[in-house]
This record gives sequence, structure tokens and C-alpha cells, in this order.
Amino acid sequence: MSEGVSDIDPVVVIGAGLVGASVGCALTSVGVRVHLRDREPSHAAVAAGIGAGTTAAPDRSAVGLVVVAVPPGALCGTVAAALEEYPNAVVTDVGSVKGTLLDELVAEGVELSRYVGSHPMAGSQHAGPVTAHADLFTGRTWVVCPHPATTPGTLAVAEQLGELCGARVVSFEPHEHDEAVAGVSHVPHLVSVAVAASLCDEVPRRLELAGQGVRDVTRIAGSDPMLWDQILTANGPAISHRLREVADRLMMAASALDQGRTVEPYLRQGVAGTKVLPGKHGLRQSEYARFTLPIPDEPGALARLFADADLAGVNIEDFSIEHDKYHASGRLQVAVDPEAAASFATMMTGRGWDVRPL
Amino acid sequence: MSEGVSDIDPVVVIGAGLVGASVGCALTSVGVRVHLRDREPSHAAVAAGIGAGTTAAPDRSAVGLVVVAVPPGALCGTVAAALEEYPNAVVTDVGSVKGTLLDELVAEGVELSRYVGSHPMAGSQHAGPVTAHADLFTGRTWVVCPHPATTPGTLAVAEQLGELCGARVVSFEPHEHDEAVAGVSHVPHLVSVAVAASLCDEVPRRLELAGQGVRDVTRIAGSDPMLWDQILTANGPAISHRLREVADRLMMAASALDQGRTVEPYLRQGVAGTKVLPGKHGLRQSEYARFTLPIPDEPGALARLFADADLAGVNIEDFSIEHDKYHASGRLQVAVDPEAAASFATMMTGRGWDVRPL
Repeated sequence: MSEGVSDIDPVVVIGAGLVGASVGCALTSVGVRVHLRDREPSHAAVAAGIGAGTTAAPDRSAVGLVVVAVPPGALCGTVAAALEEYPNAVVTDVGSVKGTLLDELVAEGVELSRYVGSHPMAGSQHAGPVTAHADLFTGRTWVVCPHPATTPGTLAVAEQLGELCGARVVSFEPHEHDEAVAGVSHVPHLVSVAVAASLCDEVPRRLELAGQGVRDVTRIAGSDPMLWDQILTANGPAISHRLREVADRLMMAASALDQGRTVEPYLRQGVAGTKVLPGKHGLRQSEYARFTLPIPDEPGALARLFADADLAGVNIEDFSIEHDKYHASGRLQVAVDPEAAASFATMMTGRGWDVRPL
Repeated sequence: MSEGVSDIDPVVVIGAGLVGASVGCALTSVGVRVHLRDREPSHAAVAAGIGAGTTAAPDRSAVGLVVVAVPPGALCGTVAAALEEYPNAVVTDVGSVKGTLLDELVAEGVELSRYVGSHPMAGSQHAGPVTAHADLFTGRTWVVCPHPATTPGTLAVAEQLGELCGARVVSFEPHEHDEAVAGVSHVPHLVSVAVAASLCDEVPRRLELAGQGVRDVTRIAGSDPMLWDQILTANGPAISHRLREVADRLMMAASALDQGRTVEPYLRQGVAGTKVLPGKHGLRQSEYARFTLPIPDEPGALARLFADADLAGVNIEDFSIEHDKYHASGRLQVAVDPEAAASFATMMTGRGWDVRPL
């Protein structure tokens, strides 16, 4: 066992889906004893089989932490029951919406000094324990959401959970968290869905002209509708006014186009928006040096490219491939630290790559 | 010179930006003589310097093909002038909107038997000749848009241009083309802009919770506003009613959320929409086998991964990296041909990668 985990050991994980089983794997890998529960005992057994913990029951009074990882609609009841069932444990949940859940718990009259909500931001469309892994949260953001009744000891345990899972822990007030995810996750999700849904109305042959742009815009629309319905309906008020504002922007753009007016000011707001998102390593997206280079669509080509970048001593911070859907070719866009840009361009050109700055 | 290019040689390219200069490079590379013109002589000189052709003037009556690659607002006048100036040449343009331009040319009373519009679908945010390259169109879709006055010989020359540039040539009626790009390109662009613009209204700290989803949705919003304004305003009628339909979908979702109703049917339409887009090699996106695996964010890791896939004899058809913006780690998602999926999983696991099916 790692040092300093005695406060939380043993841990009970309720709900052995992707997130619950991954928490189990992560804690097990650092020596914490994990007891798995699931309404479907077979799910807990599968999770135990991949190293997420044991299905044996713990000594209830000894449990230091309960992690509730059930579907959104079942969170309130499960958290309330866990606070009663494990009288000495801190209880946290890993749901995507925090303020609404807190309100429900308060309305139920639950005593909440041992409760604090968590939101590990490691989303996935894929729900089962089979895809669980100990590093699901490594390097991801893990939000803890203390409320007025949360004791410092409770908060410390929740923060320790995130750290033991390898995540970067940040703290948000519960309703502030919900406003944030409405803006940066739920609204983009619903907008992606609207664009994807509109494609169903097109004459099929027209879809042949689809490029990378529409694929990027609609990617997240492919996520699990049942899970997302629960997330979105739990955060309705924070989402709906933002969604109306986006709809209003679209209506304004439509009116401008109908009247033959310019939409350039509208487009400039979009460019500004792409620049406010934080990038990796604290750099903003706009601060990377970006290059494009052609890459043959054949086994070995990408291996050679990354090996050459490695020889150049340059880390490729981000990359994406844009490729044709019919022929064997593609172009890679790569982002590197601006300080490494010159040596990257020189070295790669020297090794025969047609590297162009973007 | 390649065989069969005598019909088009020599070619005049008017407008030495990214697309015009790339056409010049592609044609030059197959032995066609290219004469470059630009309102800014320095642009033509830069393009000539990277191998796109010569700035010397041709014998006007000998020119077989004129490619008009000027900004959208200047297309009509330039096409009309080129038809007069080069009396024996086929004239095509490479603008993104075709029906409106044809209507303008017809309204001007221009005789159009030697004109046919083209739309090489190799978009880029990057406008200058410096980023031009001979393979910009390789494997891309190149739309030709014949109209009733187009002669078979004119159409054949335009098709030959696309083929010499290495593209896959498809034919669309001009207004049908505009409807298609409104649906699969212009509307997604404007929606991406609306989401990106909305981020400017958020409290900055909330943006820390942004993940890969919103980055994908807003990527194309970073494109050149001046260029896109010209494209979008030229295709206003085809765009605006679709944009209103997307706005209506958002308003319906907002109403459902306000009333605490499910949005699952709405989300299911989105999932259906992601499945109608054609994938690479004729496979639909949904038909690939997809895997996820953790990958350390260090020089050499990606090189090793692609080298191992190469050893496995498996071509990675598509991939994307989702990574944390603060720590040194990431997860790669890869797509492979379903027939190669089993051997890919076995071989990669054998070489120490934690490959999981998605």
C-alpha cells in the first residue's frame, strides 16, 4: 500500500461500469483494498476479473471511502443509502452534474458533512467494465465540488481519491461546475447532435462531398444517447439558456445571409472563441507552432515519421490526420512547442519530409 | 509531358494563392506548361519560385485551359474576361459556390459553351502560395459542375484537370452542388462558429473544464473569416433555411430541457446522422474496428507504436489522440479494417500495448 492511504482504505465502489471499474483498477494498483458492488452481480464479477477489486463484502464500519458510480438517475438514492450504510466513510459520487444532485440530497434532508461530489473528466462513449483501465484518469482533470456542509477531512479524502487515480484535482463550487460543463461540454454536445441529425435529411449523394470539418463537428454526436439524456436532463437550466443563445446566433447569421449582408463579424467572434480554450502544458492552442506534411497511407509511413521526429528530439504535442476517404494518401498536421519549431522543420526536411509551416 | 495533355497545354492560372499555386505545381509536375497571373505580381513570382509555373505571358490564342483561382467576389468578372482574352481556351474556376456564379455569368450575357465550374475539395485555413504543394488535391474529391451550355469537350478538359491534379472527379449540377456543400460544409461551419463564439461569454476559469469534444466541434471556427464570408454570402439561400432548421432543433431541445422532458429521441437522431457519412475506402465510419490505448507523451512513444503496427502488418486507417493539457500522457484511438482487427489486437498486446476494443 502507498503511504497515506490509510484514511480511505478499504474503499467500496458502487457501480462497476467503465468509471467505477477504472477507479477500482487505479486504487488496486496503488495497494488500496477495493470492494465492488453492482446491482448486476455479474458486472461486479467482470470488474473483479480485470483487477478492479473484490466482490467480497467489507466490514462496513471500517470503510473509509465509498465511490458511487451508478447512472445519473440513481445517484441521489445511492449516495443517501451509502451514508447510512457506511457510518464512518466519506461518500463521493462521480456523476457529471453536481449542483442538481446536491440540491436533491439537501431536499431529502440527508446529513452531508461526509459527502462531497466529484467529477472525473474522462468521458467515453463506452460504458462497460470491459474497457476499464487503471490509467483512465491519468493526467485528466478531476473536479471536486465542496459545499458548505463538507468538512475539511471529507474534502481531503475526495482530493486524495483523485490524486491516487493520477488525475489533476481542481475544486469548483457545485453549481459553478454545472454552469461550466453546460458551456464547454453539454451545449457543444447538443449542437453536434443537431448538425448530425440534419445530415439525415440530405439527399444521400450530397453526403459524398463531406470533408473533415463536418466529421469533427459531429463526432461527439455518436455518444451513448441513454447516458447523455440523463446527464443533460440533470443540468437542464444551465444548458437551455445557453442553447437558446447559440440558436439566436444561428438565426442572426441566417437573417444576414437572407439579406445578402456580410457575416464576417460573426465569423470573427468564432475565431476569438477558438483562442480562449486553454491548450496543453498551459499553452493556448494558438501558441503552438503548426506544420503540415503529406504522408503516404501505408504501413510504416507514420512509424518513420514519428521515429524521425524522435531523432530530431522534438515532441509532437498534438497531431491530426486529414485524409481522403477513397485514396491512399493523407496529410498530417502536427503541433510542436514554438521553441522547437525551427529545429523540427530543419531536421524533418533533412530527412526528406515535405514539412510546411501553417 | 504526360500523354493526352495536349488539349490543355499551355495552361493559364489566374490567382496565385494556395489553390491556384497548388494547381500550378501539380500541372507542372506532370509536364504541363503553366503561366501564372496575379493582381499582385509578387504573389505570382512567389508561386513561380516554388515550381508552380512561369510568370511569362503565353500566346493567348494557344492557351488550352484557364484556371481562375481568385477570391469568390472576383470570380464572375475574371471568368468573363478570361473567356474573351483566351478565345480558344476552356475556362474553369475553383470557387466553393457554383450555382450563384453560373447565374451571375448568365445574367451578364456571357457565352458559356467554353466555361464549366470546378470545386476541388481541398480546403485549408491557410491562404498564401507559400503553403502550396503539388499533392494538395491528391486523393481529394474534385467536383465539376456542367450546365446546359457546357459542351462535351469543355467538360472533358475540366475533368482532365482534376485527374492531372490527382483528384477523384465527380460531377454535380451547379445548384445541386451548392445545396450539398451548404449541408455538409457551410452549415457545420456556421454552427461551429456559434459554439466557439459562445465560449467568449464564459467566465475564463470555466474553460479549464473543456475537453476534446468542444475542441473538435469548434476547430473549423478558426478558419479565415474574410474568405469564408465570401463563400457563405455567395450561397446564402441554400444555407439559411438549413441553419434555421438547426436552430429550431436547438430550440426544441432547450424546451424539452426546460420542461424536464427526455432528449433521448433527439440524441438518437444525432447518432443516426453520424452513421450516414461515408468513410474511407467506401467503408462507413461505423464499420471500422476501433481500439484505444494509452500512450506516453514522450519522444519515441508514437514511433514505437506505429512501428509495432507496421510489424503487425496492419494499416491504421484513422487515429486521433485525446490528451490531457497539463500532464505527460494521452490516449490514442485508432481505427483499422475490421478484417485486421483480431490480428492487430493480438500482435499489439504481444508487444506490450494495452490495446482495448472500443
